[in-house]
Amino acid sequence: MNIPRTSYPRIVIIGGGFAGISLAKKLSKQEVQVVLLDKNNYHTFQPLLYQVSTGGLEPDSIAYPIRKILKDFPNFHFRLAEVNEIDASAKKVMTNIGVLKFDYLVIASGSKTNYFGNEEIKKHSMAMKTIPQSLNLRSLILENFEEALLTSDLHERNALMNFVIVGGGPTGVELAGALAEIKKGILPKDYPDLDTRLAQIHIVQSSDCILKGMSDKASEKAEEFLEKLGVNVWKNVRVIDYDGKLVTTDTDLTFETATLIWAAGVMGATIKGIDSRELITRGNRILVNEFNQVKSFSNIFAIGDVACMVTDDYMDGLPMMAQPAIQQGEQLGDNILRLIEQKPMKPFEYKDKGVMATIGRNKAVVDLPKFKFQGVFAWFVWMFVHLFFLIGFRNRVVVFVNWVYNYVRFDREARLIIRPFKKNLKN
Amino acid sequence: MNIPRTSYPRIVIIGGGFAGISLAKKLSKQEVQVVLLDKNNYHTFQPLLYQVSTGGLEPDSIAYPIRKILKDFPNFHFRLAEVNEIDASAKKVMTNIGVLKFDYLVIASGSKTNYFGNEEIKKHSMAMKTIPQSLNLRSLILENFEEALLTSDLHERNALMNFVIVGGGPTGVELAGALAEIKKGILPKDYPDLDTRLAQIHIVQSSDCILKGMSDKASEKAEEFLEKLGVNVWKNVRVIDYDGKLVTTDTDLTFETATLIWAAGVMGATIKGIDSRELITRGNRILVNEFNQVKSFSNIFAIGDVACMVTDDYMDGLPMMAQPAIQQGEQLGDNILRLIEQKPMKPFEYKDKGVMATIGRNKAVVDLPKFKFQGVFAWFVWMFVHLFFLIGFRNRVVVFVNWVYNYVRFDREARLIIRPFKKNLKN
Repeated sequence: MNIPRTSYPRIVIIGGGFAGISLAKKLSKQEVQVVLLDKNNYHTFQPLLYQVSTGGLEPDSIAYPIRKILKDFPNFHFRLAEVNEIDASAKKVMTNIGVLKFDYLVIASGSKTNYFGNEEIKKHSMAMKTIPQSLNLRSLILENFEEALLTSDLHERNALMNFVIVGGGPTGVELAGALAEIKKGILPKDYPDLDTRLAQIHIVQSSDCILKGMSDKASEKAEEFLEKLGVNVWKNVRVIDYDGKLVTTDTDLTFETATLIWAAGVMGATIKGIDSRELITRGNRILVNEFNQVKSFSNIFAIGDVACMVTDDYMDGLPMMAQPAIQQGEQLGDNILRLIEQKPMKPFEYKDKGVMATIGRNKAVVDLPKFKFQGVFAWFVWMFVHLFFLIGFRNRVVVFVNWVYNYVRFDREARLIIRPFKKNLKN
Repeated sequence: MNIPRTSYPRIVIIGGGFAGISLAKKLSKQEVQVVLLDKNNYHTFQPLLYQVSTGGLEPDSIAYPIRKILKDFPNFHFRLAEVNEIDASAKKVMTNIGVLKFDYLVIASGSKTNYFGNEEIKKHSMAMKTIPQSLNLRSLILENFEEALLTSDLHERNALMNFVIVGGGPTGVELAGALAEIKKGILPKDYPDLDTRLAQIHIVQSSDCILKGMSDKASEKAEEFLEKLGVNVWKNVRVIDYDGKLVTTDTDLTFETATLIWAAGVMGATIKGIDSRELITRGNRILVNEFNQVKSFSNIFAIGDVACMVTDDYMDGLPMMAQPAIQQGEQLGDNILRLIEQKPMKPFEYKDKGVMATIGRNKAVVDLPKFKFQGVFAWFVWMFVHLFFLIGFRNRVVVFVNWVYNYVRFDREARLIIRPFKKNLKN
C-alpha cells in the first residue's frame, strides 16, 4: 500500500466505528502516523439504524465520511480496504488493496450479527447492523405492504403484514416501537384498501425480560409502552428456525411471516491471524488486558465491541455499546503515546454513563448510574443525547428537522423503495 | 388487479412523473376513479438528480411517496406496477401484477435515455435519469478517487480522475458545475495524498453551442462560467464509441476515462400496443393532437415527455421538460371531465415560463419569456424556483438546510459509498 513511511511510528487502526474514530481523533495531533482502514468510506451511527429502516431518516443523517472527520490532520491516512489477515510476527496486515506494515496495530473491527450457527435463519432473516442492511429492510417492509394489497389469499396477506423481531435488546425494542407508529400513523392513510389492523408486530425474547442490560423498572416500563402501542411481547420463547415463511420456537408458538428481523445477538468481528483459540473468549471477542493489549503482544490492541475486557463489575466483559468503545479509544490513544515515550500505561476504567432506549413517540426509558426514569422526560433526554452524539452540525440539523416533522405530522417521508429488495433477490 | 369497480368512470394513468401527478391531482376531487400505476412508489424531482449524484442531497429530498401525495382522496388508487402492454380495443392494460380495465387511459410514462443504438456506450456509460442510477454514479465517482489513490500507474490514475460528460444540455451542464466544485472544494481536503489537479471534467457537445434550447446569451455565459470553473467544453465534437476505457469521437480527440456520463439524449418511453409506426414520431414519442389525444383513439391520451404535440412554435413537438408535462396534466384533467360530461374539449396551449440552469455556486443562467439574465441573481432565482417546485414542506426544509450548509462550508456531506457500484459489477 503506497503510504509514505515517515520518521513517526505508524499506528494502523482497523475499523472506523466509535472505537476507531475516537482513537484516531485522540492521535491526530500527535507525532505519530495514523492509518485507518475501513471497508466503508463512512462512519455509521449505529444507534439510529432502525430509523433508516423505518423511513424516518436517510443514510447521510447517520453516516459521516471518515475522510472528513480527520481531514485537517496531515499525519492521518484513510484507505478503503478490507483486512483479510494479520501477520503479527512480521507486523503486517494483508488487505484486498495490498500489504501494510505497522508499528502498532489496533483492532477496532466491531461486531457482526450472531446467528448462533443457524444457516437457515441467516439465509432468510433480515439484519440491521449496516446501512445497506437497514435500507434493504426498509424496502422489504414497504414491498410487503404493496404485495399484501395485491393478494386475495388471507394467509399470505397476514404473513406479509406480520413482523417478527427476534431479540428484546435496544435494537429490537426501538424497531418495534417505530413499526408500531407506522402501523398507526401511516398505513391507514397510505393503504386505505387494506385492513391494516391485520399488521402485527411481535418481539420474541428468549429470557424473561426485555432490555436485559437495563434496570427492572426500565424493562417493565418498556414492555408496558410496547404493549400500549399494540406490540406483542413474547418472553421465555426461543426462536428455533425460520424457512422464509414459518417461524418455529421452543414452545407451541409459531408465526407465519414474510419478515423475520434478527436482532438476537452479536459477536466480535475477529480477523484471521488474531483469532487463535487462546485469544478468543465468549461472544467471539478478543480477550484484552486492562490496557486493551491482546495477550502476548505488546504492540497489538483491541478496542470496542471486538475486545473483551473483564473487570470486577463486568465478569463477562464490558458491554458491546458505544460508550466503552469511545472511552477505550480515548484511553488507548494516551497509552500508545505513553508506550512510545516509554512511560508506563494507565489501566482503563469504564465510566458507566447510562443506557437508554426509546419506544415510539413521547416514550423512553433511561437508566443513569444514579437516577432512573421513564416516559416523556426520558424521551427528551434520549433525543438530546442522540443529537449530541451524532457527528457533524449538518447531520444534527437534518435529523432534528426530520424528527420535528415526523413528530408533528405523525409521518416518515423516506418511505421510498429505492432498491427493491425482493425483486433483486428474485433476479 | 383487485380494484373495486364503482359507478364512476375509471381513468388509468401510467406514470407518476410531473405529468401523471399533475393530472391525478386535478382529478382527485372529481367524480371519477383514478388508478395510477408506476414502477416506483415515489415521484422523482428529476431536475435535482445531479445533486444526488454529487453527494449534495439524499434521495428523500427529491423523491416523494406517491401514496402520500394523494392520500386524502378516496377515489384514488395507486399500484406499484410495470405496464407490459396496452390492449386498446379491449380497453385493458397488462401489467406484472395483473390486468386492469380502463375507461380512459393516459400514458404519462416519460422518457428514457437514448443511446441512439450504440450498445457499447449503453453498456459502459452511466446514465442519470433515475435515483438508483444517480446513486450508482455517486458511488462510482467516489470509488474512482479511492482507486486513484492506490494505483501507481499514471495512465490509470488519470483515467480514474477524468470525467467525460456527453451532452451539453441542462443535465450535463449542471453536473459538470457540481463536479468542478467537488474538485475545488472537497478533493484537496479528502485526498491530500493525491494530486487532484489531475482531475479533469469534460463536456462534449455535438453541436456548436451548449444549452441549445436557451438563448445565445445564456449559452455563451454558461460556457464562460464552466470554463472559469475549469471544465473543458468541447463543441462540434460527437462521441462515437466508448469501450469502458477510451472515448472516441468524430474528430482526432479521444479521452481516456473510467467514467462516461451519457446525457446526450432522451427518447419517449413508449409501451407495446401504442407503439405502431403511425403513432410514433421523432424521438420515439407518441404523436398527439391539441387535446393530447392519441391518433384514432378517443379515450387514450399521452402527456409529458412521451407525448409529441406539434404547434406552430414547436414544429418538433413541445420540449421534454417539467413545464409542458405539468401544464398538459392539468389541462387534460379538465378535458377528460368535459369529455365525460359530453362537452367539447379545449385545445392545449403551452405557456412558456422560461428555462434555467445553474453552473456551480453563485452562477446560473435564466431565460424568461421577456427577460434574460445570468449570474448571482439568476442563481438565487434558480434556487427559489427549485425549492418552490419541490413537493412537500419537509423536502424543502431539508434541501434548504443542505444547500445553506454546502454553500457556507464548500461541502457535500453525502459523499458516502453506500452500495459500491464497481464492486457489484465485478461480483
